[in-house]
Amino acid sequence: MTHADTTPTHAAMTGVLAPALTPFDAAGDIDQPAFEAHCRWLLDAGVGLAVFGTNSEAASLSFGERLHALEALIAAGLDPERFMPGTGTCSMRETVDLTRQALGLGIHRVLMLPPFYFPQPSEEGLLRYYSDVIERVGDERLRVYLYHIPQMTGVPITLPLIEQLRRRYPAIVCGIKDSSGDWANLEATLKAFAADGFSVFPASEALLARALPLGAAGCISATANLNPAGLARYFAALSSGSAAPDEEMALAVRRIFASLPMIPAMKYVMSRSAGADWAQLRAPLTALSDSQGDALMNSLHEVGFRLEGLSVSA
Amino acid sequence: MTHADTTPTHAAMTGVLAPALTPFDAAGDIDQPAFEAHCRWLLDAGVGLAVFGTNSEAASLSFGERLHALEALIAAGLDPERFMPGTGTCSMRETVDLTRQALGLGIHRVLMLPPFYFPQPSEEGLLRYYSDVIERVGDERLRVYLYHIPQMTGVPITLPLIEQLRRRYPAIVCGIKDSSGDWANLEATLKAFAADGFSVFPASEALLARALPLGAAGCISATANLNPAGLARYFAALSSGSAAPDEEMALAVRRIFASLPMIPAMKYVMSRSAGADWAQLRAPLTALSDSQGDALMNSLHEVGFRLEGLSVSA
Repeated sequence: MTHADTTPTHAAMTGVLAPALTPFDAAGDIDQPAFEAHCRWLLDAGVGLAVFGTNSEAASLSFGERLHALEALIAAGLDPERFMPGTGTCSMRETVDLTRQALGLGIHRVLMLPPFYFPQPSEEGLLRYYSDVIERVGDERLRVYLYHIPQMTGVPITLPLIEQLRRRYPAIVCGIKDSSGDWANLEATLKAFAADGFSVFPASEALLARALPLGAAGCISATANLNPAGLARYFAALSSGSAAPDEEMALAVRRIFASLPMIPAMKYVMSRSAGADWAQLRAPLTALSDSQGDALMNSLHEVGFRLEGLSVSA
Repeated sequence: MTHADTTPTHAAMTGVLAPALTPFDAAGDIDQPAFEAHCRWLLDAGVGLAVFGTNSEAASLSFGERLHALEALIAAGLDPERFMPGTGTCSMRETVDLTRQALGLGIHRVLMLPPFYFPQPSEEGLLRYYSDVIERVGDERLRVYLYHIPQMTGVPITLPLIEQLRRRYPAIVCGIKDSSGDWANLEATLKAFAADGFSVFPASEALLARALPLGAAGCISATANLNPAGLARYFAALSSGSAAPDEEMALAVRRIFASLPMIPAMKYVMSRSAGADWAQLRAPLTALSDSQGDALMNSLHEVGFRLEGLSVSA
C-alpha cells in the first residue's frame, strides 16, 4: 500500500446514483458528447454517476472504450467525487487497470463486480480475487463498493465474504450495491453492516422507504437515468422525515420500466427526447418493438411523467 | 466482406484439440516460455491448439495478455493452421479485435463464446451479435466455431440459432464445440448439421466413440493437455475402425480428472513434472488441497498414466 500518509478522509457517499446509460452513435461507437450531456443532466439533477454499471451495457464495452470514455468525462470537467464507475471484469488484471485509471483521474470510489465466468467460485477464491485487486492497485485512497447481482453473474457476494473483506480492508471495502431485489438479503446486509458505517445501496427506489430506516446509504437505480430530480427529492424527503410528494411518481415510473426489458425501454424513452440515436443498443440486447414503445410512452403519459429539463415528444 | 477473390480453400480441421492450459510465473504473469513449450509438446503429440478456452483460464486474462501471447506463439514459429484460439468475450468490439488479430497472424479458425453477461438473450440478439462480429471482421477467410458451454455462460447456442447463422454465413460459421456434456444435444446437433459439413466437436474423449459414427470432427478436450499423444492415437484408431488400445487409459484418465476441479487438477499434475510454477492459478480458481493432490497422483499412478515425453515425479 502506498499513500498511507497522504490519505484524505472521504465523506461517505449517500443519496441516489444512476448507472448511467451509454449512448451510441450511428456507427455503434460511444457517442461521447451525448454521454457527457447525459451525465451533466444527471449531476445537475442531484444524482451521482455509477457509470459502467449493468444498465450502462458496460459488459458490451471494450476495455479501451471504458478507459477513453471515463477520461473524457473527467477532462470535460465533471466532478470525480460524484463518480462510482464500474471497474469489475472477469479478469483481475483488467479490473486493476480500470481501477488504477479511475484513481489517476481523481475518482476513488468504484463498483466492483466479482469475476463472473467461472460458476460457483469458492469464498476463498473470491476473497483472493478481491484481495489481489486491492493489493495490486495498492492505493489506500481506494474505496471499493462490492456489486451483488447474482441474476447476472451467478456469483453472489455473501455476508461471510463481506465480513472477511471488511476485516482485511476495513477502510477500502466500504460498501455494496445489492441488485438482487431480494429484500431478505438486503435486510440481512443492512442489519449486519450498516451500523458499522458500511454503505449499502439497494438497486431500486422501491426499496428506499424500507431500507433507509435500517441504515441504507441511498440507492443506485436504473430509473435514476430518467427520473433523477424526482428520485433526488424523494431521497431527501425520506432522509429528513418530511412528506415525500415525489414518492407516487417515483414508484409508478419504476413499475412501468420494471415490466419491460429495462435498458431498451430506457433508451427508447431517451430516443424520443434526446436524439434518435439513443435507441441504439449493443447486441445481444434488442430494441423494444414499436408496440412496446408506444405502450411505454402511453403508460408514462398516463402517470404524467416527463423528463425534467428535457422534452419528451410522446 | 473483403478478400472474396483471394479466399483459399481450407480443409476442415479434424482430430483432437487441447484447450491449452495457460502457465503463470511467480509474479502471476503469463509464463510465455512455458506456454510455448507446452504448446509445442501438444503439437508434437498430434493435437491442435484451442488456446484461450475455458480451461486456459481465458476469462481471467486481459485483452492485452491475449494479444501478446498469441502473437508470441506465432512469432516463435508455431503453425497457425493448428490453432483455434478462443476470441469470444462479452464485448463485440473486443471479439472483433481479437479475431482480426488472429487472422492477421494467419490463424483463420476461432472458437467464439456468446456474450455471457446478460442472461437469456434472445435468439435475435445472438444472431445480431455474431453477425455484427462477422461483418466487422469482414474477412471471408474467417472460420467461426461456435462455443456451446451453457454451464459457464448461461447462454446456450441453440439449433435454430446455428441454422440461421449457417444460412447467413454458410462458409464462415463452420462448426461448434459442444461442452454441455449433454449427449442428447450433441446427437441432435450432429444429426442436424454434420452430414452437411458442419464440424461438431464434443468436449470429451469419453463421447468420441459414440460421436464419430454420427460425423463428429473430433474433440476439444481438457485432458488433451496431459494425454495428447494417447488421445491422438485413440482418435486415429476410432477413425480408421482399427483396434483402439489407448481407449482404456484415455477413459480412465478422463474419469480421474472429471472427479476433481479440472483446471487446478491439471495444473497440479503439470507442476509435478514441468515446473512448480505450473500450479499457479488466477483467482477465483483455487489450488487443490495437498490431500487432493496426493490422491490425484496416486490415482494416475494406479492406472499407469505418465505424461509422454515429460517425467512425472509422483
